[in-house]
Amino acid sequence: MPTDITLDDLPDLARGAALLGTGGGGDPYIGLLLVSEELRRGRTIRLLTTDEVDDDDLVVASAFMGAPTVVVEKIPSGDEPVTALRTLERRLGRAVDAIIPMECGGLNSMIPLLVAARAGIPIVDGDGMGRAFPELQMETFGVYGVSGSPIAICDSNGHTTVIDTGVDNKQMEWLARGVTIRMGGVSYIAEYPMTGAEVKRTAIPGTMSLALALGRCIREAREHHRDPFDALSQALERSIYGSGRVLLEGKVIDVERSSSDGFVRGTATVSTFDGDTAVTLTFQNEHLVAHHDGRVLAIVPDLISVLDAQTANPITTESLRYGQRVKIFAMSTPPIMRTPEALEVFGPQAFGLHDPWTPVEVLAPV
Amino acid sequence: MPTDITLDDLPDLARGAALLGTGGGGDPYIGLLLVSEELRRGRTIRLLTTDEVDDDDLVVASAFMGAPTVVVEKIPSGDEPVTALRTLERRLGRAVDAIIPMECGGLNSMIPLLVAARAGIPIVDGDGMGRAFPELQMETFGVYGVSGSPIAICDSNGHTTVIDTGVDNKQMEWLARGVTIRMGGVSYIAEYPMTGAEVKRTAIPGTMSLALALGRCIREAREHHRDPFDALSQALERSIYGSGRVLLEGKVIDVERSSSDGFVRGTATVSTFDGDTAVTLTFQNEHLVAHHDGRVLAIVPDLISVLDAQTANPITTESLRYGQRVKIFAMSTPPIMRTPEALEVFGPQAFGLHDPWTPVEVLAPV
Repeated sequence: MPTDITLDDLPDLARGAALLGTGGGGDPYIGLLLVSEELRRGRTIRLLTTDEVDDDDLVVASAFMGAPTVVVEKIPSGDEPVTALRTLERRLGRAVDAIIPMECGGLNSMIPLLVAARAGIPIVDGDGMGRAFPELQMETFGVYGVSGSPIAICDSNGHTTVIDTGVDNKQMEWLARGVTIRMGGVSYIAEYPMTGAEVKRTAIPGTMSLALALGRCIREAREHHRDPFDALSQALERSIYGSGRVLLEGKVIDVERSSSDGFVRGTATVSTFDGDTAVTLTFQNEHLVAHHDGRVLAIVPDLISVLDAQTANPITTESLRYGQRVKIFAMSTPPIMRTPEALEVFGPQAFGLHDPWTPVEVLAPV
Repeated sequence: MPTDITLDDLPDLARGAALLGTGGGGDPYIGLLLVSEELRRGRTIRLLTTDEVDDDDLVVASAFMGAPTVVVEKIPSGDEPVTALRTLERRLGRAVDAIIPMECGGLNSMIPLLVAARAGIPIVDGDGMGRAFPELQMETFGVYGVSGSPIAICDSNGHTTVIDTGVDNKQMEWLARGVTIRMGGVSYIAEYPMTGAEVKRTAIPGTMSLALALGRCIREAREHHRDPFDALSQALERSIYGSGRVLLEGKVIDVERSSSDGFVRGTATVSTFDGDTAVTLTFQNEHLVAHHDGRVLAIVPDLISVLDAQTANPITTESLRYGQRVKIFAMSTPPIMRTPEALEVFGPQAFGLHDPWTPVEVLAPV
């Protein structure tokens, strides 16, 4: 039975999605304000499980695209992702029946909700990344045969671009990234038009409600003075993700970050308080790999998130600062993200990393 | 009465358009082959004067876009500009009634003919630049109020992009250039959808037949052992352009050229055979200004072309080579290209040049 997303759900959902967003997907704050405003105005957002989507429904993925460092300075009005949807509908000659998030992430959990609320259509409980990834071809939709094209892109001036590269999702990413860079570093997109049947076959199911549960579990642990990290690990064990563990607790002692080619790239080093052990994280919008003394502790597509050591609030890569006291938390990915075809698209080699993929359960057993 | 473009016309037209193309607009050779092939197959191309276009007709400008240096290495199949037209028609929800060239230029006189032949629609005798310019906002269509958007762009893989920046033609150029660069440096476009009434108000009329006349005049002068440069000057005096003169005859002694940001930029220096006098040309795809000893001899939007000293064949900027014996030929522009609003869009300052615009008749009287 479909449920509604309520005002109370939003902070938990944003928190949980930011955790799954592995440092990417943008800061949720502005998105949360925009969605709250819609709900306060009386609009509702119906959440459908993937099973509840009609096979013939037209479903479209929604997101912002670009460098998260830019989004926090160039605040969206909220019209941009809706214009992207309308532009895609015009191209397709058909109204879209439901929205699905492109990825899990702070802002990118809120943008699809905003579009659903504004357009008065439901949102599907699932997404195409099961976490956040920096590039548009890195979606399970594409891994399992759906074309990302046509994609509609909208900027803060209401200017639009529609790109159609047929089945070539990597070229779609390449052109869309070029447009986004020239739009000022951030844009809002509607992409991967697909049928409900394709959603059932290719989406990672239940990630919205999982994000909501994980965000709630952090909050409730804090309220009841329990360890939120233990609570998170327990919740993940009950999910399709399977496991979560703290890799290191310590202090951020170094952050190197640059915005180039439309991405935020860099490294962050976290050292234990006694200074004896340090873990270095490498990121491209999202955390890709955690190294300790040259040894891999966790690697993409498994999830690596940095959380405030006290509150367990996720910290996005663009918000990492020297001196923050944090825990590095690693999670295993669902089986649909670990197939050979999935690893080819978003495994370590897709990011130019030399370390092979090894499940985090093997690298860092709980 | 409409006339047909014949196989015999094509070399003359390409030669004359390349002359008006001021070094840009691409090498015509491959385009000439493609159009000839269509005519040999029995297709016809009807040329309409601007007066013969119905006020309610939908007219679209056609061209290749990008660095001419790339076009000569990345040969088009001929499908690309037709796909651009079809993509724009799909966006507009309406069939296009006639094609108009975006600019005068070697390849860019042939591409619109190819589209007209393939689509079976007429081509308008006129264009939006009266010469070639490197950027899409530099069209009289835009100067006098027509929006370039939506623009459809197609690459050699059949991948398409549709950009809509409303009335902002400069931003359209900026985004389209970014897409073209990522498409490999060259693309094929359909843009400035407009009514026949708008064509009459904003196009530079008669430039196809003028190009044909100029190209023919060069050939006939050669055949009859007359000076082609005298013949050109006389033909220009009878046209809306008004005048043409040789600025210098000599040898190319230096060419500096680089492809960057999707353009071919550089300088070329031509010295008299006795080495006493040299003129330096600065170009961005097209020749922008001719300097002698710090003094301006001709400056954009007036036309500067480099022609083979013997044959009067126009030489594109990407084909300039050390040792070529050439004449630098400068032409005045029609009044529609010299209004304050036109000079603001494609006068010297639009290219970052510091010299003010002065008519070539004043700088270098015949």
